[in-house]
Amino acid sequence: MLKVGIVGASGYTGAELARILTNHPNVELTVATSRQYAGLPLSKVFPNLRERVNIVCENLSGEELCERADFFFTAVPHKTAMEIVPVLLKKGKKVVDLSADYRIRDAKVYEQWYQEHSSTDVLAEAIYGLPELYKNEISNTNLTANPGCYPTSIILALAPLLRNNLIDEDSLIIDSKSATSGAGRAANVGTLFCEVNDGFKPYGVGGTHRHIPEIEQELSLLANKETRISFTPHLLPISRGILSTAYASLNTKGDNEDILSLYQDTYKAEPFVRVLPQGDLPATQFVRGSNFCDIALQKDTRTGRIIVMSAIDNIVKGASGQAVQNMNLMNGFPEATGLLNLPLFP
Amino acid sequence: MLKVGIVGASGYTGAELARILTNHPNVELTVATSRQYAGLPLSKVFPNLRERVNIVCENLSGEELCERADFFFTAVPHKTAMEIVPVLLKKGKKVVDLSADYRIRDAKVYEQWYQEHSSTDVLAEAIYGLPELYKNEISNTNLTANPGCYPTSIILALAPLLRNNLIDEDSLIIDSKSATSGAGRAANVGTLFCEVNDGFKPYGVGGTHRHIPEIEQELSLLANKETRISFTPHLLPISRGILSTAYASLNTKGDNEDILSLYQDTYKAEPFVRVLPQGDLPATQFVRGSNFCDIALQKDTRTGRIIVMSAIDNIVKGASGQAVQNMNLMNGFPEATGLLNLPLFP
Amino acid sequence: MLKVGIVGASGYTGAELARILTNHPNVELTVATSRQYAGLPLSKVFPNLRERVNIVCENLSGEELCERADFFFTAVPHKTAMEIVPVLLKKGKKVVDLSADYRIRDAKVYEQWYQEHSSTDVLAEAIYGLPELYKNEISNTNLTANPGCYPTSIILALAPLLRNNLIDEDSLIIDSKSATSGAGRAANVGTLFCEVNDGFKPYGVGGTHRHIPEIEQELSLLANKETRISFTPHLLPISRGILSTAYASLNTKGDNEDILSLYQDTYKAEPFVRVLPQGDLPATQFVRGSNFCDIALQKDTRTGRIIVMSAIDNIVKGASGQAVQNMNLMNGFPEATGLLNLPLFP
Amino acid sequence: MLKVGIVGASGYTGAELARILTNHPNVELTVATSRQYAGLPLSKVFPNLRERVNIVCENLSGEELCERADFFFTAVPHKTAMEIVPVLLKKGKKVVDLSADYRIRDAKVYEQWYQEHSSTDVLAEAIYGLPELYKNEISNTNLTANPGCYPTSIILALAPLLRNNLIDEDSLIIDSKSATSGAGRAANVGTLFCEVNDGFKPYGVGGTHRHIPEIEQELSLLANKETRISFTPHLLPISRGILSTAYASLNTKGDNEDILSLYQDTYKAEPFVRVLPQGDLPATQFVRGSNFCDIALQKDTRTGRIIVMSAIDNIVKGASGQAVQNMNLMNGFPEATGLLNLPLFP
Repeated sequence: MLKVGIVGASGYTGAELARILTNHPNVELTVATSRQYAGLPLSKVFPNLRERVNIVCENLSGEELCERADFFFTAVPHKTAMEIVPVLLKKGKKVVDLSADYRIRDAKVYEQWYQEHSSTDVLAEAIYGLPELYKNEISNTNLTANPGCYPTSIILALAPLLRNNLIDEDSLIIDSKSATSGAGRAANVGTLFCEVNDGFKPYGVGGTHRHIPEIEQELSLLANKETRISFTPHLLPISRGILSTAYASLNTKGDNEDILSLYQDTYKAEPFVRVLPQGDLPATQFVRGSNFCDIALQKDTRTGRIIVMSAIDNIVKGASGQAVQNMNLMNGFPEATGLLNLPLFP
Repeated sequence: MLKVGIVGASGYTGAELARILTNHPNVELTVATSRQYAGLPLSKVFPNLRERVNIVCENLSGEELCERADFFFTAVPHKTAMEIVPVLLKKGKKVVDLSADYRIRDAKVYEQWYQEHSSTDVLAEAIYGLPELYKNEISNTNLTANPGCYPTSIILALAPLLRNNLIDEDSLIIDSKSATSGAGRAANVGTLFCEVNDGFKPYGVGGTHRHIPEIEQELSLLANKETRISFTPHLLPISRGILSTAYASLNTKGDNEDILSLYQDTYKAEPFVRVLPQGDLPATQFVRGSNFCDIALQKDTRTGRIIVMSAIDNIVKGASGQAVQNMNLMNGFPEATGLLNLPLFP
Repeated sequence: MLKVGIVGASGYTGAELARILTNHPNVELTVATSRQYAGLPLSKVFPNLRERVNIVCENLSGEELCERADFFFTAVPHKTAMEIVPVLLKKGKKVVDLSADYRIRDAKVYEQWYQEHSSTDVLAEAIYGLPELYKNEISNTNLTANPGCYPTSIILALAPLLRNNLIDEDSLIIDSKSATSGAGRAANVGTLFCEVNDGFKPYGVGGTHRHIPEIEQELSLLANKETRISFTPHLLPISRGILSTAYASLNTKGDNEDILSLYQDTYKAEPFVRVLPQGDLPATQFVRGSNFCDIALQKDTRTGRIIVMSAIDNIVKGASGQAVQNMNLMNGFPEATGLLNLPLFP
Repeated sequence: MLKVGIVGASGYTGAELARILTNHPNVELTVATSRQYAGLPLSKVFPNLRERVNIVCENLSGEELCERADFFFTAVPHKTAMEIVPVLLKKGKKVVDLSADYRIRDAKVYEQWYQEHSSTDVLAEAIYGLPELYKNEISNTNLTANPGCYPTSIILALAPLLRNNLIDEDSLIIDSKSATSGAGRAANVGTLFCEVNDGFKPYGVGGTHRHIPEIEQELSLLANKETRISFTPHLLPISRGILSTAYASLNTKGDNEDILSLYQDTYKAEPFVRVLPQGDLPATQFVRGSNFCDIALQKDTRTGRIIVMSAIDNIVKGASGQAVQNMNLMNGFPEATGLLNLPLFP
């Protein structure tokens, strides 16, 4: 049994890690940290975990943590992650970091969108943890930078198009819609029930959302060409889920290609990507609670564009589920272990 | 007091007309039809109307209707509208038709997207009922074709850009999200609570939604140039509201223009368009239950695009409220009469 | 035009007062206070009010307030109300206080459930502001204590039964369910969207909710007998609305009475109480945004009990709408002025 | 591997059975029937099942079914169940019936609330499938009558009180609130999203709901005394979950008893009942998607009553999860097999 720790267990992604790991046959959750709730059983903070998760939140230093587990999920805010991850790695531990701190390969780009990067040497070792793109690299690293939720939904949706040079990259427009859990569990007027319920709105409009450099980094690598996108996030009155709708102009090659077959081939061996048959469309409610990413395509012959839509559960495939998928790869467990629950509908 | 009838009172738009008209000082609701609920008080079908709306649903022919009112809202499905509207007009009645039958000026285009048009002579007289574009024409017509909900949100959002030739029309991509009431009140598995709740999905993807010819007709007139759009509707788990997010590449003129001032000037005399200050963003919850259309703009300097967002209540400004606004114009009442309620939040 | 001020405009009830007063023909909103948002237009705090409410939040003392308006709504927390209300009254202003500070007639009872009462002399003058019970008294007072939301729904539901001695008072059990707006707009983990959405739970179980002494005070007066209830509140994943389900054992007199007729007679002159016909049942969605209280009755012959159900909008009839109704009475305006909007459905 | 069939797979409970059984290590789903969707893959009807459930809906007779599986879940409407279950039993198959047809032990009582009972001989063999009450009997039967959703939540909540004679049975009032999935997946205006969303209402008030005889049957057996209840169901705007709030007057024995310890003792060996510590309260969101029943108690010393609250997921512990629990018992599998997923929160 692999001894596993969750650093930052009091957010939604921390609780989801605990939920998933409870039924994982190869691991044991041995430590969970939370400054705010230190001393409290995690199941008091998240009563859905009652009687199945029997761990008490603690407030521990990096050194103390190293004595308690061999594998860590760091689910803390960016900047805090850069402080703790190097300590864990130095003691020979393996880490999946769920923050943004190790996602951006170029520290200068990171610093444009976030703040100073204080851990650039470790950054060089980190692998971007999208298993569908970097399975081998993840299997051989000690540090995986777990992707952001929007980036996961977008990169999986666009990878086959870009890799095969089927679209005009400069035409990419991505309109994404996220569940409110993406905003975290901090007390905040803007995410109160009455502010969000029965409503819908955009935010971070005009090229300002911090997931943009992460998305562009990976799309550029796939396209083998610097790629800039328009990306607009919106806030949905739902608890879980992201749906991204991407628009791109097909080039001549793309116009002639059987793109659906290409997607099916690309993802046929992937346990968590479901390419939908022609005519079916994804919906967040059909991936709820699961690690699936559902993808559908539709050409618009009137305008020469292709529309690619993808749906994920932002807390699972967009965060904690993908983190467990990465943990599986990093430890030689079968990739889908602990992640085969079907989506909960309705 | 103008005697007013609602033809097709048992849908959400019919009930909303009754709700709005109840507090309108210049009209009296004298007849309401419903085949399905004939004989039943409308307030049994819509209990929110209890004790304030005392009208019983009837099943009447066009001729019978003409004896009962002088102004009609036809809130029946397309095709049915073409059968009843000419009868009412022939007897000298005025009509706001909420169906699609008189929105498309070119019967051939209508026939491509709907079915045969059986009322082309009347079609020639109809005015497209977007008051912010056609106030004078509406004031002088006997037949107003009330716009679709998506078209209302989109045309108001884009009119100033197109009229002033600030964007590349071919670059227009519109990603819209609608409340479930847009699907009507028919019993249907797809719009059951459990199918929609806590979920989100696209539909009619790839240039197939019937509002496209209506949108393109008006955008083309504004641009003075044939304009084709990519339009993707999505279904929101909310009762009321449409939010449209439109993307377009600015041309050189647009790049240099103070577009916010242009919008503010364009709409400053309009009682129901609120152009938001820079940095504010629209949300469906802030127009709920009102006839407002909130519009915001954001340039994306990284990609040279402009993003225009608009929010309306699909049942009010997107249907029944706009219909009453048109009725006001057609009868010489002040345009905003009966429509000045503020949005209900939360 | 009566000059009106809102003290504590940044909560949901303050915003709702502004919304309602905007369309009230006899008043002008001349001042609104908020410590937190001083200097900000109220329509920035509540964007639904954009372009119609043009008042800026201020932080003013009681004395300063008195120069700015002649009638005040105090929508501040209990204890704060006791500090400001006496200042306003002393200057000859009239006040509707929306806090709990003047609802409990017996200061000792107040002190058991809240804290020390520092304004007992003013308390003696206050009228409990349920217009259906105390219309004359309200019309002649300078200080109305606006009832709590739960008490409004419950007292209106039970008044005819108790006044006419039709039930065993000791058998009263009231199971109430409230929208989340009842918890206010403070940032709080427990009322975040993700905590409340798609869920349901009780709170304050076992005779601990502070509305109990207020409910029992009025029920005891109606019954002319000390009356103790079991009251359990629950939290609904909705924005507005309270539905109370009350259970009582009928006594012999009640068993034989035509209770529906009694209710219809009791409330026939009341503009905001709708007694439903036999077989119809209330629903919060049919009073949404309105000042109505819908009431239905059902005898359970198997157990000899009667079930009385009532629905209100907790922010309107349960707070701001009722406050305006009281203002109307206190100023000689027709009771329903500004409150005749129909419920918004869907 | 046990070959298992689902008769009536196109409802929410049928789909949930498929979802749960997919991860059950001892069974194989070999047949699923649906008249309406015959010929269609079940994963087309319920896209959450995509790529994991590869079964096609069929329309088969009882005889044909018997060749395809050895264990059946009949998830068809009452009356239809009585027609198919005897056929399956005659061929030596084991059955969990999710309809009401075999829940009421006394056919005369069944006939008062439903219709004629055409399978009284089989009825005599059926075991009421609440494992916490009848574990041994279920382990030895060929036909389990899976309990109704409301009865499950209520009987588990009250069993220790009644068995130990701690309350006045005649005082029992149960106020229950159910998710909309309890109404099934039939197209119906009353359960459309817009009718239910952001609203709340009672239904079946006054002793008319068909779960009453089932609840009273089991409560009477537990009390060893004929017991009549007042039961009021309400409709919640949520997809999954039932919360029942039960009120009873404590008798002298109950007044003195440590009831929480009694509950903890009663259920300590039960894998799916979680008795909450004093002060914690159940919530549907903390059992969502799981087979748990969370129970809390609170004495109200002011009135001498006890309030017992329970929360279940109506589709899992209230239907399909409990059915699988019963299947496990009937086949000698460990009781919790396939049912250990934790609740999904948020």
